[in-house]
Amino acid sequence: MLLSQRERIRHCRACGTMVEYRIPADDNRERAVCPACGTIHYENPLNVVGTVPVWGERVLLCKRAIEPRLGLWTLPAGFLELGESTAEGALRETLEESGAEIELGPLFSVLNVVRVGQVHLFYRARMTSPHLDPGSETLEARLFDEDEVPWEQIAFRTVRETLLAFFADRRRGQFGLHTADIG
Amino acid sequence: MLLSQRERIRHCRACGTMVEYRIPADDNRERAVCPACGTIHYENPLNVVGTVPVWGERVLLCKRAIEPRLGLWTLPAGFLELGESTAEGALRETLEESGAEIELGPLFSVLNVVRVGQVHLFYRARMTSPHLDPGSETLEARLFDEDEVPWEQIAFRTVRETLLAFFADRRRGQFGLHTADIG
Repeated sequence: MLLSQRERIRHCRACGTMVEYRIPADDNRERAVCPACGTIHYENPLNVVGTVPVWGERVLLCKRAIEPRLGLWTLPAGFLELGESTAEGALRETLEESGAEIELGPLFSVLNVVRVGQVHLFYRARMTSPHLDPGSETLEARLFDEDEVPWEQIAFRTVRETLLAFFADRRRGQFGLHTADIG
Repeated sequence: MLLSQRERIRHCRACGTMVEYRIPADDNRERAVCPACGTIHYENPLNVVGTVPVWGERVLLCKRAIEPRLGLWTLPAGFLELGESTAEGALRETLEESGAEIELGPLFSVLNVVRVGQVHLFYRARMTSPHLDPGSETLEARLFDEDEVPWEQIAFRTVRETLLAFFADRRRGQFGLHTADIG
């Protein structure tokens, strides 16, 4: 969802009073501030964490069973939760969405999607078996050779960029870190 | 602040009703859910973005004028805001805290601090002049040679880890990406 489409905070999380939008002292941005108890409500970008799971030459993609982009293909990924590291979150999302058991490799891409307030981080990963068991958010999990990837049906631009970088790096035999801003 | 010390959400941001903590349908974590309007309140880790600004051989550190860790030294860094990329946030924080004008280099460290719900991202940066003009959050901004760094007075472990990795990489003449979990 675009930032401009987000529901604004209307009530104070601490006491329930209607908030006011103003720039707090010692700040330079408008925040939702509670006129009753003074609580300042910060809203910040979210991290999405995922993996590029590989079994042999093939890459694992998941067909989304949920909106947005229902029916399109994605790398396993989801919102980072409190209490876990980016690596742990990427591992959890991979297991939840595909059932794949993996060994996590290095961080591979860090992609900013400013207009939706997200940072996407993908890790390389090696599947330890070809077994798949997609969860409720996935219609189908499948391994693809590079020439089988359904490029016209990829759910997110960060997934597309990550896959393109992955195949390019694999061809030249050296993997780097990829950073980019997704418009 | 430790996650366990955070103030819990008590009222719905949309309608002000007292929330309940329960696991929503199609979820597996407890969230603050509004029994009146159904709004689910997600809380997720925050990104802190900063730089390792260099002028010649020297590295820029800022002495904190605010809590936490008032009076201790840090690399310029702060919370990523909506509407900016991690690189833009790092640039902004550097300017706000030190007045330094920089050219941003590659992403250098991605450090998870799970117990406070934060991910810290530092970029390498080259100062384009030695001019400094610290903002209200900084008591003093100063350039340090490696052997002058006040290691016993560094404000945060992520700053310490980033500085150690930076000097080690510089000695071997090759900079990489550093990822770690800070306990």
